[in-house]
Amino acid sequence: MNRIITISREFGSGGRTIGKLTAERLGIPCYDQELLEKIAEESGLAKEFVAERGEYTLRGGWLANAFSDRSMNGLSMQDYLWTIQRRTILDLAEQQSCIIIGRCADYILDGKADLLKVFIHADIETRAKRIVEKYGEGVEAPEKRLRDKDLRRSSYYRLYTDVEWGIAKNYDLCLDSGTIGFDRCVDIIASLY
Amino acid sequence: MNRIITISREFGSGGRTIGKLTAERLGIPCYDQELLEKIAEESGLAKEFVAERGEYTLRGGWLANAFSDRSMNGLSMQDYLWTIQRRTILDLAEQQSCIIIGRCADYILDGKADLLKVFIHADIETRAKRIVEKYGEGVEAPEKRLRDKDLRRSSYYRLYTDVEWGIAKNYDLCLDSGTIGFDRCVDIIASLY
Repeated sequence: MNRIITISREFGSGGRTIGKLTAERLGIPCYDQELLEKIAEESGLAKEFVAERGEYTLRGGWLANAFSDRSMNGLSMQDYLWTIQRRTILDLAEQQSCIIIGRCADYILDGKADLLKVFIHADIETRAKRIVEKYGEGVEAPEKRLRDKDLRRSSYYRLYTDVEWGIAKNYDLCLDSGTIGFDRCVDIIASLY
Repeated sequence: MNRIITISREFGSGGRTIGKLTAERLGIPCYDQELLEKIAEESGLAKEFVAERGEYTLRGGWLANAFSDRSMNGLSMQDYLWTIQRRTILDLAEQQSCIIIGRCADYILDGKADLLKVFIHADIETRAKRIVEKYGEGVEAPEKRLRDKDLRRSSYYRLYTDVEWGIAKNYDLCLDSGTIGFDRCVDIIASLY
């Protein structure tokens, strides 16, 4: 059984960066952009659609999501994407030890790989500063963008897993990257691998 | 400002033991039983009452708690205990660097000390095995005892802090003592001190 680290993260917490640094330290691959490309190829869907609809529900809450692209009797494009995404993550985990960022990999691989499930978070001020540095100013205040992203990501997680996102019990390790710092986070995750 | 480690923990997760081992490693005091004794002395209440009603709501849910010992216009004994407990924890944190187990110390000291907020949890099978080893068999199945303790502890936390217990965001570090092991937990906490 391969040893897999899954990293779930709040938007702007640096979970992706911590994942990449940990992978370099351990000499194993980190799947994030490459995973997205694999899923796009397998599904025939655009990368932008996979990036957005493979981790987030639509803006506008329950109603917008219920009537968006789900037909009354069939799969929505988002449901179809979920099935391909799930299959791609299971295949990856069978092939090698690696780090997988986001995309409900912790839930998908539970019981199917030797997992270390990590959740990275930080307070909203730290994350707001980081997203402005990284992605620039937007039309909306960074705090509002973060709250929107958090809500849509946790809704997506809930929709496909029926498990609450960000509850300590669901992870082996949860770290506040703001108070602990990226380097220490990498040290701790690598030490537990 | 003293450096304080607060350890919140699920019943049976070994959070208390991990706290004591970390304190020995760091050469600082760990307040658990001694804190309880201080609070009992300050309040004039029995140690058994402090042990139980300083961390748990009553069995029987909302109704049992609403009409138990709270007068319509005044403080209940549990409310009075809360005020003494809060004051005792604030005093302790002013005097020295230390580890404090449970009793909402993470919430009480937030912004008032240089805090490392830790939450220790484990899956229910691991905890059930542990409480049977430690406290023996009870009339009720260990899983039922754990669910009851978890519920009453989180209700207490919610009642006095208005914050949800066990949400990753509220801690610097959350650890699954079952998958990570006590020694590694101690290593990680001590390394962040």
